[in-house]
Amino acid sequence: MVDAARRVLKERIPSFVPAHPIAGKEVAGISHADATLYNGRQVILTPLPQTSPELVQKATDCWAAIGSQVLRMTPENHDAAFAAVSHLPHMLAFAYFNSVARQPAGRDFLSLAGPGFRDFTRIAASDPAVWRDILMSNREEILKQTQRFRHTLDAMEHVMKSGNAEALEDLIRKASDARGGWQMGAGKPNR
Amino acid sequence: MVDAARRVLKERIPSFVPAHPIAGKEVAGISHADATLYNGRQVILTPLPQTSPELVQKATDCWAAIGSQVLRMTPENHDAAFAAVSHLPHMLAFAYFNSVARQPAGRDFLSLAGPGFRDFTRIAASDPAVWRDILMSNREEILKQTQRFRHTLDAMEHVMKSGNAEALEDLIRKASDARGGWQMGAGKPNR
Repeated sequence: MVDAARRVLKERIPSFVPAHPIAGKEVAGISHADATLYNGRQVILTPLPQTSPELVQKATDCWAAIGSQVLRMTPENHDAAFAAVSHLPHMLAFAYFNSVARQPAGRDFLSLAGPGFRDFTRIAASDPAVWRDILMSNREEILKQTQRFRHTLDAMEHVMKSGNAEALEDLIRKASDARGGWQMGAGKPNR
Repeated sequence: MVDAARRVLKERIPSFVPAHPIAGKEVAGISHADATLYNGRQVILTPLPQTSPELVQKATDCWAAIGSQVLRMTPENHDAAFAAVSHLPHMLAFAYFNSVARQPAGRDFLSLAGPGFRDFTRIAASDPAVWRDILMSNREEILKQTQRFRHTLDAMEHVMKSGNAEALEDLIRKASDARGGWQMGAGKPNR
């Protein structure tokens, strides 16, 4: 995004304040508009060295006025973080849905799926053109994250295959405790 | 479950009606009890050849009385289906949460995660002892499902690495369309 802005805006790049609101929907279009969508959500600004400080402040005020909590990061740190907490989950949800839907009994299986499945796959319904661009443009960071994920998945498969129930429980407990202690936006300074 | 029941109940096995309600919570204990938890949810009964038909009917009536939709399947078909639509998602959610939480910047990354992450990882908070037993006892079917999942994940990584944005969009669109057309319980006869 920043690379494209540099190419297009050239000497006007100081007027560009890159921003990423951490909120969204798996459905697109004006009929799904929601005036409260950004309320209480984080917005990441990734100003460049050349970005006008006054415009960064204006953007901050604008996002804050609709209820957002504004943070600042470098574009590089932003891309690494969101590969881990947003792009990889989308990729896993897409891959998972395809793996279930495209097997011989997939249709029957899907008719039995419950609330856990519903929530786990919600993001698999996300817009294909938008996510094509996100996954392609951040693919280096995302592929680093898929490698990490494969290692933790390998570890679970290994203990299951070897019949080590205690080690399996330990891996599950690490995830369960960490997720149980996680709260959305808990890292925010003003909350 | 059925194997254990056969071992323990022996000649009293006809009185055992195996049942699996497709509803649950990622939190356990009486303080999280919810009288409406089974309302509108599917319950799978997996009677054995020896199971008493009268008791199957009693179990059906009992679950129906608290609002559930009762289906019947063989234990084998049940285990194959739920490996795909429940056990694998839990395993992926556990593995994914561990892969993010245990990297050097994991804590910072987690503080930035939003609603998509929250829903995708909700099931990662599930009870470790319960899920240790589920994953171990159905591991053959689950490991078949992880193999399928790895193939679809491989396919996405391959098109990203080769820069084939069109093929990537096609894979995402297949998942997105299928998930967009999915409704929980849509396979139920009476809905």
